[in-house]
Amino acid sequence: MNHPFPAPDALGRPLPASLAEQLRQRFGDRFSTAQAVRDHHGRDESPFPLVAPDAVVFAHTTEEVQAVVGACREHHFPLIPYGVGSSIEGHLLAVRGGISVDLSQMNKVLAVHAEDLTATVQAGVTRKQLNDELRTSGLFFPIDPGADASLGGMTATRASGTNAVRYGTMRENVLALTVVTADGKVVRTAGRARKSSAGYDLTRLFVGSEGTLGVITEVTVRLYPQPEAISAAVVNFPTAKAAVDAVIQTIQLGVPIARSEFLDAATIRAINAHSHTTLREAPTLFFEFHGTESGVQEQAATVQAITRDLGGQDFEWATRPEDRTRLWNARHHAYFACLQARPGSRAISTDTCVPISRLADSIEGARRILDAASFPSMIFGHVGDGNFHAVLMIKPEDEAEMQEGERLNADIVRLALSMDGTCTGEHGIGLHKMDFLLEEAGDDAVDLMRRIKRALDPDDIMNPGKILRPAAS
Amino acid sequence: MNHPFPAPDALGRPLPASLAEQLRQRFGDRFSTAQAVRDHHGRDESPFPLVAPDAVVFAHTTEEVQAVVGACREHHFPLIPYGVGSSIEGHLLAVRGGISVDLSQMNKVLAVHAEDLTATVQAGVTRKQLNDELRTSGLFFPIDPGADASLGGMTATRASGTNAVRYGTMRENVLALTVVTADGKVVRTAGRARKSSAGYDLTRLFVGSEGTLGVITEVTVRLYPQPEAISAAVVNFPTAKAAVDAVIQTIQLGVPIARSEFLDAATIRAINAHSHTTLREAPTLFFEFHGTESGVQEQAATVQAITRDLGGQDFEWATRPEDRTRLWNARHHAYFACLQARPGSRAISTDTCVPISRLADSIEGARRILDAASFPSMIFGHVGDGNFHAVLMIKPEDEAEMQEGERLNADIVRLALSMDGTCTGEHGIGLHKMDFLLEEAGDDAVDLMRRIKRALDPDDIMNPGKILRPAAS
Repeated sequence: MNHPFPAPDALGRPLPASLAEQLRQRFGDRFSTAQAVRDHHGRDESPFPLVAPDAVVFAHTTEEVQAVVGACREHHFPLIPYGVGSSIEGHLLAVRGGISVDLSQMNKVLAVHAEDLTATVQAGVTRKQLNDELRTSGLFFPIDPGADASLGGMTATRASGTNAVRYGTMRENVLALTVVTADGKVVRTAGRARKSSAGYDLTRLFVGSEGTLGVITEVTVRLYPQPEAISAAVVNFPTAKAAVDAVIQTIQLGVPIARSEFLDAATIRAINAHSHTTLREAPTLFFEFHGTESGVQEQAATVQAITRDLGGQDFEWATRPEDRTRLWNARHHAYFACLQARPGSRAISTDTCVPISRLADSIEGARRILDAASFPSMIFGHVGDGNFHAVLMIKPEDEAEMQEGERLNADIVRLALSMDGTCTGEHGIGLHKMDFLLEEAGDDAVDLMRRIKRALDPDDIMNPGKILRPAAS
Repeated sequence: MNHPFPAPDALGRPLPASLAEQLRQRFGDRFSTAQAVRDHHGRDESPFPLVAPDAVVFAHTTEEVQAVVGACREHHFPLIPYGVGSSIEGHLLAVRGGISVDLSQMNKVLAVHAEDLTATVQAGVTRKQLNDELRTSGLFFPIDPGADASLGGMTATRASGTNAVRYGTMRENVLALTVVTADGKVVRTAGRARKSSAGYDLTRLFVGSEGTLGVITEVTVRLYPQPEAISAAVVNFPTAKAAVDAVIQTIQLGVPIARSEFLDAATIRAINAHSHTTLREAPTLFFEFHGTESGVQEQAATVQAITRDLGGQDFEWATRPEDRTRLWNARHHAYFACLQARPGSRAISTDTCVPISRLADSIEGARRILDAASFPSMIFGHVGDGNFHAVLMIKPEDEAEMQEGERLNADIVRLALSMDGTCTGEHGIGLHKMDFLLEEAGDDAVDLMRRIKRALDPDDIMNPGKILRPAAS
């Protein structure tokens, strides 16, 4: 089948028997070549077809990861770190074969230094688990992609979420990493100081490296005091443009909003069906305000005034914790709600991010591009950052639909690039956006990335075939 | 002389005549081998002895920098980017000879996108110049090292300053860079979107690279709306520990203070003499609060309550803009005030940064270490970040004093490293801290840095001999 998604590049070779033996001896039951286990590790939330790894190892410690890397290195055989499988650009697919290193059992919170506002966790700890363990500390960790992703995976994709407008992304919130490098060394990239000018920023190099430079085994993150007061609000708008303009004005005024999410009418409809909510099916903003009691009231009053001027209506408060939880759960499930709205579909999710002043143009442009589509689509996202997702619900087995989806996706990306934006605000490149990366960054910047990859992973065993297409020779 | 500072490593070779000719033809008067010009470019604010470059080029455009890099590359001859010369770890010294590329005439603000809260400037624009040009826009750029440094230099050293506790450092505030790479390519590292997951974080790799990976020629930074209300306050404490504890509690409570600077009694004395102020000569905190009128009042009330509990007294407001300007100018001149306090001295400035809970121990430890010194010293710094400077006022021509200073400096660094801190919060490694970097990061992490350096600058022409000592063969 002439699949519009990149096919496995068939450079893989069979699992060497001596490597399998070595890993079986070391890991026993935690080494598996069972088809079901391999299949489970051979796809993510993207519409890519399954490409299973040759085997799966369930690691428990950094030293065990080191052992896997050492064995793979001896055999020049690829490995692919695996968290919870929630990436959506094909990051996990074993396009050149390899060992999937499942880190989900590395799920210990190693240290909470409440007095320093930091925590150190094993890579398999998920964001919800961390916040559950922080509950009595008065602190929280703000980064919240839709899925309950692992901290290792979130680091590897430079993830963000609904709180990024106030608290930043993984880029700003990772203080230090423990990484197993391609030559099997264990490197800690930094200490726990809030800032440092000590040499090249290895931490930031591994944040967003998608497993291609090393395996992240421990993550030290910044924490924040739980705000004294929180309130959330929902407000409807006559048009998507009016909603987005309200956010743009809020950002430009410097109101320190914690969250501001846009959802179009179609998304709200899907959410109502999925989460049994009764939200009005109109272009909508969800806001959240963090601060002192009076600070929150002040922010809310400012935002309410802005939204009113732009035709916002039904400004509705969610002050009780359970109402806020319901609201944000509904938002976090938007992606799955969309999928459910067209049974049997998978989603191509765009992830463009543009300078804030271009956001309304960018969303309206995406809507125009999608109006011609033969399949349904929805738009929602983290508009306070200039980031939104158009979710294109295609049937992966329908080749024409897949190709159409990819074409429209490309049009939306190119529109963002023409606005000095990026093809991906938070999902990463994976398999799917390697050509967009080239368009966005240019040959010379991608050449720098390629040189870094070669310098740190000369045998190309670390999640090969992702981020960077092999250079034309 | 058996100088305790690393001596020029004498690997330099004479300026090739054909390189000089090539640059003279292209740059005319803007190429100089005059001794006075070379000497001016051969030292910074450190106590290092002068090591002049072989020639100086005054560049006006990215293309001109590209021409210099191209010529140097052909001749395998080093080059060293130069901003205003305010670095303090010997970053600019031509220890292997080379061409100093003076970027101070690249001083155009290229674009202010007020609606996106971004500005793009040439690398030679200084922080004060940028803020002067922003004055009518309602926006400002917060990063403020003591000197009126260039944005290119601030990027290269990953600088911060008094506002970092609220607004972050250059790491968080640079959105994109234009860089001339060692092979003479012009690379733009990112677009202007607030966040991106598009491949390796080249922007963060060049932030803090100290001219060793390429020449930064343009910088795109984040801007912030000028706060509706600002107020500053000065408060004295019975002990340094009480002052630092007040800051620690403020941070732990999540009060969004914009600035919190500690100055010991000796620093205040030096400032009073230098800036003709009449501050009480006691351990002191300077605070600044940004927000709405009521938000600022609320923050100040919280901080006042914390300081009162810790014995803080004489809490004094500086609400008029001119009073605040006087206060922060005095703070920015602290380094020079210290130098003036001992005529003929130069300073070894420590720059450790530790997790916030260890800050009081770290400062008290530094004070104990310095109590034994035969020369005067002062302590001040950005305590909200866990970062402070002990300024050791030594006479550089007194070898015993220099060696003593270096020994005490090393003791202070090792104390910070034992607390999971860093040897440098904001000044960088330069020539002076290459051994500390190794102690802090470890051989394997420094090896990764070395591989990155080799991958991006295989001929080692970009500010060679800084950050990384040549690997032992």
